[in-house]
Amino acid sequence: MTLHDDIVAMGQRALTASRLLARISPRRKNAILKAFAQEIVKDKAAILEANAADLAAGKTAGLSAALLDRLELSAARVEAMAQAVRAVAELPDPVGRVIRRWTRPNGLALIKRRVPIGVIGIIYEARPNVTADAAALCLKTANAVILRGGKEALRSNRAIVAALNAGGRRKGLPEDAIQFVQTPDHEAIRELVQLEGLVDLVIPRGGEALIKAVTEHSRVPVIKHYKGVCHVFVDESADHDMALAIIENAKCQRPGVCNAIEKVLIHEAIAATFLPRMAEKLLARGVELRGDEAARRIVPNMRAATETDWTQEYLDLILTVGIVPSVKAAVEHINRYGSRHSDAIVASSEAAQTLFTEEVDSAAVYVNASTRFTDGGEFGLGAEIGISTDKLHARGPMALEELTTYKYVIHGAGQVRS
Amino acid sequence: MTLHDDIVAMGQRALTASRLLARISPRRKNAILKAFAQEIVKDKAAILEANAADLAAGKTAGLSAALLDRLELSAARVEAMAQAVRAVAELPDPVGRVIRRWTRPNGLALIKRRVPIGVIGIIYEARPNVTADAAALCLKTANAVILRGGKEALRSNRAIVAALNAGGRRKGLPEDAIQFVQTPDHEAIRELVQLEGLVDLVIPRGGEALIKAVTEHSRVPVIKHYKGVCHVFVDESADHDMALAIIENAKCQRPGVCNAIEKVLIHEAIAATFLPRMAEKLLARGVELRGDEAARRIVPNMRAATETDWTQEYLDLILTVGIVPSVKAAVEHINRYGSRHSDAIVASSEAAQTLFTEEVDSAAVYVNASTRFTDGGEFGLGAEIGISTDKLHARGPMALEELTTYKYVIHGAGQVRS
Repeated sequence: MTLHDDIVAMGQRALTASRLLARISPRRKNAILKAFAQEIVKDKAAILEANAADLAAGKTAGLSAALLDRLELSAARVEAMAQAVRAVAELPDPVGRVIRRWTRPNGLALIKRRVPIGVIGIIYEARPNVTADAAALCLKTANAVILRGGKEALRSNRAIVAALNAGGRRKGLPEDAIQFVQTPDHEAIRELVQLEGLVDLVIPRGGEALIKAVTEHSRVPVIKHYKGVCHVFVDESADHDMALAIIENAKCQRPGVCNAIEKVLIHEAIAATFLPRMAEKLLARGVELRGDEAARRIVPNMRAATETDWTQEYLDLILTVGIVPSVKAAVEHINRYGSRHSDAIVASSEAAQTLFTEEVDSAAVYVNASTRFTDGGEFGLGAEIGISTDKLHARGPMALEELTTYKYVIHGAGQVRS
Repeated sequence: MTLHDDIVAMGQRALTASRLLARISPRRKNAILKAFAQEIVKDKAAILEANAADLAAGKTAGLSAALLDRLELSAARVEAMAQAVRAVAELPDPVGRVIRRWTRPNGLALIKRRVPIGVIGIIYEARPNVTADAAALCLKTANAVILRGGKEALRSNRAIVAALNAGGRRKGLPEDAIQFVQTPDHEAIRELVQLEGLVDLVIPRGGEALIKAVTEHSRVPVIKHYKGVCHVFVDESADHDMALAIIENAKCQRPGVCNAIEKVLIHEAIAATFLPRMAEKLLARGVELRGDEAARRIVPNMRAATETDWTQEYLDLILTVGIVPSVKAAVEHINRYGSRHSDAIVASSEAAQTLFTEEVDSAAVYVNASTRFTDGGEFGLGAEIGISTDKLHARGPMALEELTTYKYVIHGAGQVRS
């Protein structure tokens, strides 16, 4: 079998599985989820052994420290993985929920009802816990899933998928509801995203190369989970202490995630007083600062920001700072250089707040709060498959509801159209 | 300028226009819509003259009668076009509407609010009224639009766009909010669907060649408005007279549209009594019947159906008939050969109805009613840009609400994440 035939066959099996999944009860789905968690715990030693082999190979291959950190599992992280799967079982089930029910003047009774999407392909990078998370969320929403993790995590992912399938077999999960692409090269991604009529949605989670491989070749709908180039704008009306606390939190609390900030824009009217305080605070936290010309006139010991600095997601303790003449200019900068993810204004002026929230074209726009809250759990939506940086179907946190679609069911008594 | 540069420049102008559009008031949008309608009526003679030239060229080029019919405008059709635009002004405006508003335990106040999508590309075929409809719906939802109509209708579309822009200029429509691609060849489509970061959504409305040109090259999100291979299944529990009326309506009332049926499946238990009556009725209406072996044993004067007959959208007075042993078999046939558009069961058995509505994976699933009701107006959703045959973001009738997306606006008082 060629790789092409292999991936097409996976797609066909997934489609068959998705038809069976659509009919299993919420109770059965939750029992399978609990069995997943049990088997993950039971297989902990095997998962950690596989992970150690991945880490060793990664070190030999010269992976960065950040990548190795994302790859690494520990006993506690495996337990947390199982706990996250158990938590999905506890969430309310969106499948079958009635979105709207109405009757037309001609007597037709319409129901708009949530249904599974069908077959979802998830393409991700080094973090092995995504394997368990994605499988759990897709099962909860009765979607068949084809997982394609990064090649660095191949052994870890195989061990996790083995645990999931062992749990599934015990509780009657339809065969092929969860499939895993073993082939390490990008060719497998290209084949997967061309499965028109078999795969209903592809979710790529990752950086530029991965997103490019998907969007250039895809013939099926894609919802990208791409980079977060998030901003805090400090308005002239800002409470300076609040702005400092928000910037410190959004930059330093967990710099390697997509809702951490990468840029700060400061209104020119307060830059001379605010920027030195901010620089002092962040330098003490080990943050490398880069600045535009105006910022460097106030705090000279910053590296000059280049044009690429404005679009780059560092995922690290680096921050680029710019001075802007107005809220309007901040909005324009964010819409031009940002990634439409999460952006915040710190301001007490209502006019400034309104201009910012209305005109910044991002999934989540904050007033006087940290961008770090962009998260399914923090929003109260339950677990999430990731943060969509696209605008269609799902924007921002993509939780259970966003893993469903809808259909119209219409009951009549012989109505015909005149 | 190359075609590539030309299309990129259109995308950039559209993005600029979309930012301005997002700020204009509902009252202004409705005034512009009314001006569109006025100018269409005022330019009626010019539009009809351009259309006559398109028709003459089409006849010379040997276009089919069906295509010429879709292309042809009359004074009444131009009036109807203007009336449809006026009707859009009367519809409720979805932009800015609050979808949900809630507060988290930490005091963060979240609002999920409808916003315009941004820039939408609409690629369609011969019907020139789509030009006015699409422009009106996109303006109402504050999206900038790039229109690319079929080359057969180029002169008609130019005349309509000239009328729209004349109306827009009178009432302060941002420049480039409505742009029209003049280049007739498919290369322009390929360029348009690669405008990542400029175009937020492409909607192709049309047949196989058009859809293929879009999905093979697109790097931006696509919502396909593809063919309708719609079915009526007549269960053994059906009221025969009701089934006959529904089939006649769904096939004959307007055979050239996507929600007309192309196939009928009949339960084997009633085929011997039902099929002869159906054949008599439809033959009298001039319908050509094709059948599987079992159907031809009952009504021999039908052409034998080939494998392609089951997937073909005739858009004409042709119907293919098959006999199935069960509701389950009907569901499997529809899920295999259908286009996930609209399918109906005629049955009095509740068990049969439920099995059918739960398992047929289509946008609209009917019980005892004609598939011809799949339409934004008939569903009570207002005007529609078309019928999505995709599952993401919009499924079935794509009306004003589906031409919007949402964003989260979050108000805090200095909250940071711990």
